[in-house]
Amino acid sequence: MEALRPLDALNEARNKKVMLELKNGKTIIGKLKAFDVHINTVLEEAEEHQDGQLIRKLGNLFVRGDTIILISPSVE
Amino acid sequence: MEALRPLDALNEARNKKVMLELKNGKTIIGKLKAFDVHINTVLEEAEEHQDGQLIRKLGNLFVRGDTIILISPSVE
Amino acid sequence: MEALRPLDALNEARNKKVMLELKNGKTIIGKLKAFDVHINTVLEEAEEHQDGQLIRKLGNLFVRGDTIILISPSVE
Amino acid sequence: MEALRPLDALNEARNKKVMLELKNGKTIIGKLKAFDVHINTVLEEAEEHQDGQLIRKLGNLFVRGDTIILISPSVE
Amino acid sequence: MEALRPLDALNEARNKKVMLELKNGKTIIGKLKAFDVHINTVLEEAEEHQDGQLIRKLGNLFVRGDTIILISPSVE
Amino acid sequence: MEALRPLDALNEARNKKVMLELKNGKTIIGKLKAFDVHINTVLEEAEEHQDGQLIRKLGNLFVRGDTIILISPSVE
Amino acid sequence: MEALRPLDALNEARNKKVMLELKNGKTIIGKLKAFDVHINTVLEEAEEHQDGQLIRKLGNLFVRGDTIILISPSVE
Repeated sequence: MEALRPLDALNEARNKKVMLELKNGKTIIGKLKAFDVHINTVLEEAEEHQDGQLIRKLGNLFVRGDTIILISPSVE
Repeated sequence: MEALRPLDALNEARNKKVMLELKNGKTIIGKLKAFDVHINTVLEEAEEHQDGQLIRKLGNLFVRGDTIILISPSVE
Repeated sequence: MEALRPLDALNEARNKKVMLELKNGKTIIGKLKAFDVHINTVLEEAEEHQDGQLIRKLGNLFVRGDTIILISPSVE
Repeated sequence: MEALRPLDALNEARNKKVMLELKNGKTIIGKLKAFDVHINTVLEEAEEHQDGQLIRKLGNLFVRGDTIILISPSVE
Repeated sequence: MEALRPLDALNEARNKKVMLELKNGKTIIGKLKAFDVHINTVLEEAEEHQDGQLIRKLGNLFVRGDTIILISPSVE
Repeated sequence: MEALRPLDALNEARNKKVMLELKNGKTIIGKLKAFDVHINTVLEEAEEHQDGQLIRKLGNLFVRGDTIILISPSVE
Repeated sequence: MEALRPLDALNEARNKKVMLELKNGKTIIGKLKAFDVHINTVLEEAEEHQDGQLIRKLGNLFVRGDTIILISPSVE
């Protein structure tokens, strides 16, 4: 199956664990629940990580799209 | 219940205590009263916190959306 | 009375003393006379403050909205 | 007389001396000749000032709106 | 064959290996699967590289367009 | 003659020598040939200057509008 | 012949060698193949230069418009 648009590809990651890298250097890992065209994103069971270590648990989380660099659904 | 759009998820946090992280590094905690599509946000009983400590009370507060990194409704 | 939109909440602060925090770290206090959807804001009797000290009086003042972090109507 | 919109307030300053503070830290003083919704601004007899000292005369000047923090018509 | 619009040129790189340089200084190499008018981009088998060395494998990856400086399809 | 809109004022500088100050701190001097609503600007015989010294000749030059702080037609 | 709009001027440089200066301080030289209203730009035989020295060859290259400061078609 071929994803032709970036948001279609994001959609395939819905309800899966994803990693977000933010412009302030932080890494957030959580289950992708929702996103919109601005890439505003809602995660469940979100956690802030640094160098592979858990920094703090954030639970449900709304992330403003313009602070996101990348979203990777490939979290082991 | 499934929130499909990020603003729907934010809406579920209305009238609840939320934590805002801003691009200038500040953390604001308060009761979420209103927001719009730019994520302009109004809080009640807002407080600025740093390292878990209360820095100052801000009362009612309007926060311009483009300064917000994330909003977490999971404040204990 | 419930303010459902952020600009409605700002509107309740019209003609009252408000505190603006700007992205360049400055704090401006003055009477809120006007604002628009960009949060472009006009104050009367505006003053620049730092650490609770008056730095200078600015009188009437137009502040471009995109430089504003937050607006607090709760100035004692 | 009540100015209800920020640009109306700016309009009252047309042909008067105003002070502009720019995001690069510079202060420009001059006679306000024109502005638009982006706050693109044209001054006459513009001067760059620093710490109350005249740095250089700039004459007619077009300032791109997104570089402006504030405009004060209250220049003595 | 002549590409007259930038997105047409990007389209010719679809399903090919490309290098992305991001505003945070990072280099990402991967197979270009999708992009949109904001240059939001989806890569497969994405890898972060630094000074020609592989830093980490990212697998499928969504990159927000406003963080991209350049995209080069000429990866050997 | 009164210029009521900023772009009208810029238009009066067309085919005249102007000075551009850019957000990266550079000063460009050249003959203004064209501009648009984004303040994208085309100069002829453009030169980069620093502290009143010519750094390099750039000839014809397209400058992206969002990098411009100010344009002064008052170049002696 | 008079170019009245900046993009017309850019268009005259199509298929010619141009120099791009980017906001991250890099200089790219290459043959201008395509651009759009956002100044997204495609170059052929692109090279990164620094202080007049070739740093690396980039071949075909898509550059996101918002990272461009200036484009000079006057490359000797």
